[in-house]
Amino acid sequence: MKLLSTINEPNDIKKISPADYKQLAREIREFLVQKVSATGGHLASNLGVVELTMALHLFLDLPKDKLIWDVGHQAYTHKILTGRRSGFDTLRQYEGISGFPKTSESDCDAFNTGHSSTSISVATGIVEARELNGDDYKVVAVIGDGALSGGLAYEALNNAGELKANMIIILNDNKMSISENVGGMANYLGKLRTSSRYTGIKMKLEESLSKVPAVGDKVVKSLKASKDSVKSLFIPGMFFENMGITYIGPIDGHNIQIVTDALNAAAQTNKPVLIHVITQKGRGYKPAELDPSKFHGVGPFDRKTGDTIDNKNTRTYTRVFGDKIVELARNNKKIVAVSAAMADGTGLKKFSKLFPERFFDVGIAEEHAVTFAAGMASQGFHPVVAIYSTFLQRSYDQIVHDVALSGLPVTFCIDRAGIVGNDGETHQGIYDISFLSHVPGLVSMAPKNAFELEAMMDFACNYPGPVSIRYPRGKATEKLKEFNAPIVKGKAEIIRKGHDFCVFALGRMVKVMDEIADELLNEGIDLGVVNARFISPMDTQMIDKFAGESKIIFTCEENVCRGGFGEAVGAYLMEKGYRGEFVNLALPDIYLVQGTPNELRDSLGFDPDGLKKRILDRCLRK
Amino acid sequence: MKLLSTINEPNDIKKISPADYKQLAREIREFLVQKVSATGGHLASNLGVVELTMALHLFLDLPKDKLIWDVGHQAYTHKILTGRRSGFDTLRQYEGISGFPKTSESDCDAFNTGHSSTSISVATGIVEARELNGDDYKVVAVIGDGALSGGLAYEALNNAGELKANMIIILNDNKMSISENVGGMANYLGKLRTSSRYTGIKMKLEESLSKVPAVGDKVVKSLKASKDSVKSLFIPGMFFENMGITYIGPIDGHNIQIVTDALNAAAQTNKPVLIHVITQKGRGYKPAELDPSKFHGVGPFDRKTGDTIDNKNTRTYTRVFGDKIVELARNNKKIVAVSAAMADGTGLKKFSKLFPERFFDVGIAEEHAVTFAAGMASQGFHPVVAIYSTFLQRSYDQIVHDVALSGLPVTFCIDRAGIVGNDGETHQGIYDISFLSHVPGLVSMAPKNAFELEAMMDFACNYPGPVSIRYPRGKATEKLKEFNAPIVKGKAEIIRKGHDFCVFALGRMVKVMDEIADELLNEGIDLGVVNARFISPMDTQMIDKFAGESKIIFTCEENVCRGGFGEAVGAYLMEKGYRGEFVNLALPDIYLVQGTPNELRDSLGFDPDGLKKRILDRCLRK
Repeated sequence: MKLLSTINEPNDIKKISPADYKQLAREIREFLVQKVSATGGHLASNLGVVELTMALHLFLDLPKDKLIWDVGHQAYTHKILTGRRSGFDTLRQYEGISGFPKTSESDCDAFNTGHSSTSISVATGIVEARELNGDDYKVVAVIGDGALSGGLAYEALNNAGELKANMIIILNDNKMSISENVGGMANYLGKLRTSSRYTGIKMKLEESLSKVPAVGDKVVKSLKASKDSVKSLFIPGMFFENMGITYIGPIDGHNIQIVTDALNAAAQTNKPVLIHVITQKGRGYKPAELDPSKFHGVGPFDRKTGDTIDNKNTRTYTRVFGDKIVELARNNKKIVAVSAAMADGTGLKKFSKLFPERFFDVGIAEEHAVTFAAGMASQGFHPVVAIYSTFLQRSYDQIVHDVALSGLPVTFCIDRAGIVGNDGETHQGIYDISFLSHVPGLVSMAPKNAFELEAMMDFACNYPGPVSIRYPRGKATEKLKEFNAPIVKGKAEIIRKGHDFCVFALGRMVKVMDEIADELLNEGIDLGVVNARFISPMDTQMIDKFAGESKIIFTCEENVCRGGFGEAVGAYLMEKGYRGEFVNLALPDIYLVQGTPNELRDSLGFDPDGLKKRILDRCLRK
Repeated sequence: MKLLSTINEPNDIKKISPADYKQLAREIREFLVQKVSATGGHLASNLGVVELTMALHLFLDLPKDKLIWDVGHQAYTHKILTGRRSGFDTLRQYEGISGFPKTSESDCDAFNTGHSSTSISVATGIVEARELNGDDYKVVAVIGDGALSGGLAYEALNNAGELKANMIIILNDNKMSISENVGGMANYLGKLRTSSRYTGIKMKLEESLSKVPAVGDKVVKSLKASKDSVKSLFIPGMFFENMGITYIGPIDGHNIQIVTDALNAAAQTNKPVLIHVITQKGRGYKPAELDPSKFHGVGPFDRKTGDTIDNKNTRTYTRVFGDKIVELARNNKKIVAVSAAMADGTGLKKFSKLFPERFFDVGIAEEHAVTFAAGMASQGFHPVVAIYSTFLQRSYDQIVHDVALSGLPVTFCIDRAGIVGNDGETHQGIYDISFLSHVPGLVSMAPKNAFELEAMMDFACNYPGPVSIRYPRGKATEKLKEFNAPIVKGKAEIIRKGHDFCVFALGRMVKVMDEIADELLNEGIDLGVVNARFISPMDTQMIDKFAGESKIIFTCEENVCRGGFGEAVGAYLMEKGYRGEFVNLALPDIYLVQGTPNELRDSLGFDPDGLKKRILDRCLRK
């Protein structure tokens, strides 16, 4: 990698001869495949933006200029070009470099991203700051076509349309979000992509204009006409032009010269400009070109073949959910499923194939997903909305205002709840208990194992109001199979009666606590273990029962402390005048960095050994 | 009101002769002015949609068909036409009829609304439900041009664009949200409004098309050309057509015949159709026509003159905030203000006039408001984002992910926190402590009086990270002026030392508790009162101090119990092994109905007398 080795600082790329750009792009791709095959990471999207990123770095003066990557998982080449090449062996690992832009990592990362559709808002704010300060740096947001379905991006476009200053939005159109893109905007971009700009358009326009619908009594007639004509009427970029954004494109995102030309042209205006760039996801690495979805986010893989070590035999919670919802849907035609561009990740793929007419992928649009579900529920359906914990943060108001307020039967299946891992701060699922458990009328649960997730889904899909079920990333344990008391609203389940000490554990912590309880017997301590099951309503009877018998009550959950389950139990015990001790084992109220879930648990003393020690210490003191 | 008196049930309007429609509209307007002048309510928007609502009721068969009002404050005529005329004397009053659609009030109200931009999502969900069920009812969403700036509406349009079934969206364009509309979409609608459809357009098209920008080296040249030509290129409704939504309009929303014609035409397609209807806010009542903002939401007023009983002398928290931010901005050029279409309501009007270049109204777009502010903060500005508690629910993820995660100095000024009143369930501000206090790094406060709000704003605007300040609707008390300890992060303030008993009170409850403490002295009880000031970080030292001296610790806040301040205090006391009693005085975990704040407090025993009694009972038992 002769050329790549000369790039050690921001702007080093400007020393490369244009004749060598192709070679550099090749070396970057080789480097990306080599590194990501070892560490895992986001590959297809990064392979797609190699030339685009090179062009941006040739055009910009970093860190003076501000470059904001939407979502941010496609910023690997940007990291390579800003002196972070050597960090790639630790990519997404504990204490290694992040898979996303991080202002703490480089001053060339203008903003921390992770969730979708934020970049145009951020860029608009930065442009206004620049104008007020009288500075003259450039501001560029790079947003994918998938992220453009998020309402936040539209709110920002709407606001940006009024800017009297330059801002450049790169619409990186690879025809996909994580999987196939959906919605009116995607269809529109599809038309833009294939538009030949000059040819044909003019003729169609003339033909159609004589038929544009009119007002009043002409409406009926003209509407019929419009069905055939207006819809075929098409002018590239008018959608954006109508919002006040100048449109350039579509252009080939793999042609550095064309992209830099467009950037230079765009920089001449005192207006926001959107450059529509077509790129190919997975470009230059055959396995990723052929299956970009698989290589969107991927674990370590064989570079030659592209084969990943798929643990097809691992029954994850995602899979348990995916199988169970199919079973439920077979028996209940009122069950429908809603996904926000994550059919694969949430386990809804199978459902979508078996019941395509009852499956709704609304695009990256978590707010709409929930309110849409509320609409369906209002007409007798039972929507199951499957969204990762971290992305459900987008839907907080919709859950409060559109679902729970009306008591509608919508079930929220919250995957990736708890510590998630390598995507770091922006993707942990450690707040959902805190932002959901106070929502009036929402029944919230967490299963202890695979079977209980199934039972809770049974319960939820037969419950006449809103329910949430949170479960973690990864393997669904089958331990504690013998504990299978029927799910009754607000009722916990005793796993071990114990003596003097007991823990109310939630979700995955039940098994951990049960195993710790086993070990504690050797120390002469008989720890009772209660599977709390319900976050809300919580089982106050069960708490009362154990409060009457226990010297110490522990709670344990994988969520931050503030607003969590344990806090509610602690406050309840306090109000009831419990005279024993109370220990809340929850995560600290922080943003959790990247690493494997177990590394992160270790770092927090939240691993089984750490938790055992904390429990043992307290029990021994008693 | 001869005609109106014949309308007592849904569909009764169909018995009226078309020749009498004008008279009926007049009677409805007279009725509305008469009733709202007595009770207060939303007037201007309702006067604007009288004919539109009549046309909808002529077109639809309610309750079989589904009519969804976005926001919902414009549904008064709909209520009149569905048998609720006699309820208007109790409009928005405790146990009276709601100012918004309520499914519990009438089966002609298809969905509960209140917040903006939900209607197209709901309608899309209902349409999918109808199709799966094989039903054939009509589905109509009515959305204002203001609500169209919300990202949720766009996410829904994007999804609706793929529908293969009929849905009708009425874009009720009155050129305003609550105040003037802003953004690219508003400009676009402005152009649509004035478009003459046939004349002129064709010529401009031909002229422009020869100059549409091309790719590569032609970009520079064509871009310059495009500034003059492409932007003048305009075809009505293409924005929506591009999304896959058939566009009809603009039409006169005060012409019942034209509107019903358009509705009938729209119903013929198997696609979503948007009918762009122009209406006049305040129509038919001169004072409201002249000042529609004033009559958007209004208290009781004089019908003849339109004069309201303005308590200009009442210094509300809104006004204290509005004055203080102006003072701060005078001394600190880095302070900017951000509003989501509520400059008036949040008290930012004065700021916007004095510092127009530092004032940003982003439209009804609470998500973007926050992420935009984050962008500005990342470049050294200190944005103050003023949003009502209930609407800030929309920004939860943006606060977590875009502001607090990066520790950016954004101050959230949360007006209407606590019980708000007559708008009912959808507008209470009783959840913000629960959804904000677990956000890592966010400093959260509540002031006890006007002066403390000022001091907290001083503190916040000098604090290098994110801060929230919540304060209630209405008059800012000046009581307890003598307690003015400097604001120190995480430090509470002692108002009364007390003996044996103490209360940690938050915000407006401090004064209430101080007055109760006065009265309790007569009963021989010396209640200590602590002004908690900080929700997070909470003052654990102060709690420890009082825990060491008190037999009972009370907390008091106007927020739901779950996830609230008191719960955190209770759990903390439990963990610390406090052996006294703890009583959490907070609101129950419910949706709170409409009524004046004091009526609602009475109903919950949360009025001063009720609270005093609860405290006294507990103290006497000790």
